[in-house]
Amino acid sequence: VTHFSDRLIAAIRQKNSSCIVGLDPRIESMPRFILDATAKEGSADEHLRRSIATFHRLVIDSVFDLAPAVKPQTAFFEQYGIPGLLALADTIEYARERGLLVIVDGKRNDIGSTAEAYARAYLGGGQSAFVGDALTVSPYLGRDSLMPFVEACERHGKGLFVLVKTSNRGSGDLQDIEVANSDGHSTIFMKVAELVASLGESLVGSSGYSSVGAVVGATFPEQAVQIRRAMPKTIFLVPGFGAQGGTGKDVVPCYNADGQGAIVSASRSITYELPDPGLSEADFRALVRVRTVKMIAEINGFLAHLPTA
Amino acid sequence: VTHFSDRLIAAIRQKNSSCIVGLDPRIESMPRFILDATAKEGSADEHLRRSIATFHRLVIDSVFDLAPAVKPQTAFFEQYGIPGLLALADTIEYARERGLLVIVDGKRNDIGSTAEAYARAYLGGGQSAFVGDALTVSPYLGRDSLMPFVEACERHGKGLFVLVKTSNRGSGDLQDIEVANSDGHSTIFMKVAELVASLGESLVGSSGYSSVGAVVGATFPEQAVQIRRAMPKTIFLVPGFGAQGGTGKDVVPCYNADGQGAIVSASRSITYELPDPGLSEADFRALVRVRTVKMIAEINGFLAHLPTA
Repeated sequence: VTHFSDRLIAAIRQKNSSCIVGLDPRIESMPRFILDATAKEGSADEHLRRSIATFHRLVIDSVFDLAPAVKPQTAFFEQYGIPGLLALADTIEYARERGLLVIVDGKRNDIGSTAEAYARAYLGGGQSAFVGDALTVSPYLGRDSLMPFVEACERHGKGLFVLVKTSNRGSGDLQDIEVANSDGHSTIFMKVAELVASLGESLVGSSGYSSVGAVVGATFPEQAVQIRRAMPKTIFLVPGFGAQGGTGKDVVPCYNADGQGAIVSASRSITYELPDPGLSEADFRALVRVRTVKMIAEINGFLAHLPTA
Repeated sequence: VTHFSDRLIAAIRQKNSSCIVGLDPRIESMPRFILDATAKEGSADEHLRRSIATFHRLVIDSVFDLAPAVKPQTAFFEQYGIPGLLALADTIEYARERGLLVIVDGKRNDIGSTAEAYARAYLGGGQSAFVGDALTVSPYLGRDSLMPFVEACERHGKGLFVLVKTSNRGSGDLQDIEVANSDGHSTIFMKVAELVASLGESLVGSSGYSSVGAVVGATFPEQAVQIRRAMPKTIFLVPGFGAQGGTGKDVVPCYNADGQGAIVSASRSITYELPDPGLSEADFRALVRVRTVKMIAEINGFLAHLPTA
């Protein structure tokens, strides 16, 4: 089984891009032509499923050669119930057909046999249609809750991204709490960083990176410096670029000095915020492509100036 | 809109039971008659959906007058993909038909509009078939990540149970970390307890309890004493009874001195661990019922000896 980390690093090198595109179905923000084209046939549920699947198919067609991966956000599919989840399965299938890695952003977590069930649902070994290449997970339940996910990654060549320092303004409520007896130098997010680095030791591939990654928000560059230093073999999944305010400069500390080791995700700023909801299919595809190219250029521009790049 | 907490407390009083039954579909552990009866018609997917839905229908029929609520665990449905999630919708619908409250155990969490999407999926206001009466959520992302869930509870009369101290052996990895400058008296789980109590202040019903509850494992009675003291208006959802080793004595500290304020959940020890996979439907129903009655008697027995009960 090839390590997920090696597959991801190879895709990043091949495409010269560490930018990934988030897929968050928001029916009310989609271009009008999507809803019109799919409205003609079938039930309301079929219309919903087809709208979401068609929208993502167009996004994927527009970026498949630019992005190493896409990141479907499960919440936005789950909000639409069964039709939404059918569209999630369609979207995962189509992304993989087009050679994209799929990072399922589910922030799942639980213990024991329940964690095993989530791993079967999203990393493989069961009967689920939601299996991608990696899954985001939450660390609050501790090391033993993460082990079933790590074992599934080992078995199926999949990856994890564990929440370490998230991009929201309130992320510090818990994550920034200072740990006693640490001379004021350690915080909860650093404790989680240590845990994640240690969990990932057994899954380091020939690329030098582990298949157990970390989620580190683009909105906290100072903390990113500290986390990056503590876990050199960990790939960072960096949300918060674009709509949440993170810039190309902000994400630089998430990379290692050689310009490797992070993927940056944008969703709304690539696929929504349309100048005109009535735009044509060709214009929509061009817009998504241009925005992705710009994001890659912005980030690659900063990475080119790293000391050892 | 009636507060979720008031509906739950009323159901507990009416049934004289604070025991809830966990619904975790595990096809391989179901009685043979379920799989045989549903195998005759339709596709493999239909068989899967019908087996899970039928199994839960029997469990619900056996305990609807004994338990105030059931707790479907989403991971075990998600592992079966679309048929599993269709069965989740069936199960939620049937439980509500039989007058049971439904606590969806999804341990979801995310930020901003993504948290809103999860709230729509499980607490209402959207197009999802997975809406129950309450949802379990994880606190790692901080207060602002929980607010969309709290607002949805207010709008739709629903409830939350936020992870505070979980029942797994490794729960201490993060949750027990001592906080700096707290004279060694505060831990992460106590910080989360304070956050949850404060979030719940605006949702206290006429019962005196808030619709923002806490998950506190049955396996850590000493910590439960401390948490109970810090959040008197919070309802505890207590997993870890039965298969995970928690006993009637262990769960007592999760209740207030008047014997109120907690619900205890058991899954495997009620619905699986069958003496004979070939048992009849009548025997299965009797078994589930007897086990639930025993659990209620065990817990009520301990509660009767509380100082002020």
